[in-house]
Amino acid sequence: MTGVPDRIAIVGLGLMGASLAKALKRSARAPRIAAHTTEPGDGERALAEGVIDRYDTTTAAATVDAQLVVLATPVDAALALLSEHAHELNGTDTIVTDVCSVKLPVVQRARALGLVRFVGSHPLCGSERSGYPAARADLYDGAVVYVVPGEDDAANQTVAALWRAAGARTAEIDAATHDGRMAWVSHVPQILASALADTLADRGIAAAALGPGGSGMVRLAASPPPLWTEILRHNRDEVVPALRALTARIAAFEAAIAAGDDPELRRLLERGHAWRTRQDE
Amino acid sequence: MTGVPDRIAIVGLGLMGASLAKALKRSARAPRIAAHTTEPGDGERALAEGVIDRYDTTTAAATVDAQLVVLATPVDAALALLSEHAHELNGTDTIVTDVCSVKLPVVQRARALGLVRFVGSHPLCGSERSGYPAARADLYDGAVVYVVPGEDDAANQTVAALWRAAGARTAEIDAATHDGRMAWVSHVPQILASALADTLADRGIAAAALGPGGSGMVRLAASPPPLWTEILRHNRDEVVPALRALTARIAAFEAAIAAGDDPELRRLLERGHAWRTRQDE
Repeated sequence: MTGVPDRIAIVGLGLMGASLAKALKRSARAPRIAAHTTEPGDGERALAEGVIDRYDTTTAAATVDAQLVVLATPVDAALALLSEHAHELNGTDTIVTDVCSVKLPVVQRARALGLVRFVGSHPLCGSERSGYPAARADLYDGAVVYVVPGEDDAANQTVAALWRAAGARTAEIDAATHDGRMAWVSHVPQILASALADTLADRGIAAAALGPGGSGMVRLAASPPPLWTEILRHNRDEVVPALRALTARIAAFEAAIAAGDDPELRRLLERGHAWRTRQDE
Repeated sequence: MTGVPDRIAIVGLGLMGASLAKALKRSARAPRIAAHTTEPGDGERALAEGVIDRYDTTTAAATVDAQLVVLATPVDAALALLSEHAHELNGTDTIVTDVCSVKLPVVQRARALGLVRFVGSHPLCGSERSGYPAARADLYDGAVVYVVPGEDDAANQTVAALWRAAGARTAEIDAATHDGRMAWVSHVPQILASALADTLADRGIAAAALGPGGSGMVRLAASPPPLWTEILRHNRDEVVPALRALTARIAAFEAAIAAGDDPELRRLLERGHAWRTRQDE
């Protein structure tokens, strides 16, 4: 069975990258972790706190002797890093993975660059919080990490072992299926939360005026806008039709309420209710 | 200062009514609580569990000697109870309040029936759970209860004292302002959750496939459809325009994503982000 390599490089020490380092460091047989980040002060702080073993001021220095490189950056940065470092990585046995919320653009880029040991990852445990201060050792505990296998089976097994070592469960998926599903379970909910928050702002309603149910509906609006601009752009072909389907459903509610059509309104409410409560059983 | 009366009647022993009884019973100087419910077995169970002091098989019997009557039912039932019992209540000093999520129809009905000691209440601590088994003594702790004052100031003070005794904070509001605000902070979020849940069901996606963010967006879909059919019907004039404003905002996201307009998409995300994160400071 393939285990976790001894030398890991993590590029990016935000919520995902620093939480991964903290999770791995819980083990007595923790790997040595080199890291690079562009955020001022975070590398030094992570080193001082024992979260990483080495802080390098460039990606090249952090990854030079790594057996496994984790690109823990937003998607545009991950794409740029793949392009920038493909030449040096292609001459080695180094395995590369990422943590991006969209998989097709990343997997396609890696393939185009000939990175045969690239394996896509997406931990489904993001949150509206971000950055090094939000990182925690238990972020991945029990979470699902989607793994998009590449052509090198040993690399696939190593990446799956990495996430299991961090406390997560892994699920294999192909990139297109992943992105289609994420449009629904993550990207559309993000847009709904942002749109609702924005309309509440327009009405002069404070978040504190919301009850517990309403609060849960706007929590995601605190997610980082730059990160989400990239995600939504990269998954446009899935997100736009999903938004249209959802808008049509909201319009059905609106029509039933406007017409005073109680049976239809109740039927619409029952459908979501049946789906949601079935999961609790 | 007006306190909580010694004899209280609660009509309805669901989440709101039974939680109120449990909350009041925490105090050494708890009032005597008579109750009526149409749910088979709940009255006997509440009595056996010491949540109430008397279980009556009719509303008339439960309220006959009460100084304060709490109608803890859905809105249509509360309206019917007001109409049915106005004649007997009008001959007494009995104070009446309710817990409905819409206030204008209830307050208007009470006024039309000459119930001068009616005071509207709406505890902002509902949840997707419902019924006697979901009731808990701490439901109201720290929650906001909106109070729509009637024309009798002593009655207003008594109802406010009731909710404070149950652990809540009270906030006075007029019925129209309340219903306009609730359309935004509660009713539209409910529709969004139900519509999203229904579209996820259509796609064959299980609730378990959602990450923590997405889960928070569909939790409300588990709310009871009959209750919500009534609420949305009664607040139609506020809910329909609110839904239209929200749908227009979602359409703006869709247009920005479809056009690949990153600056506009980011601007839209930043607006909700600024509103949501301002509340955390």
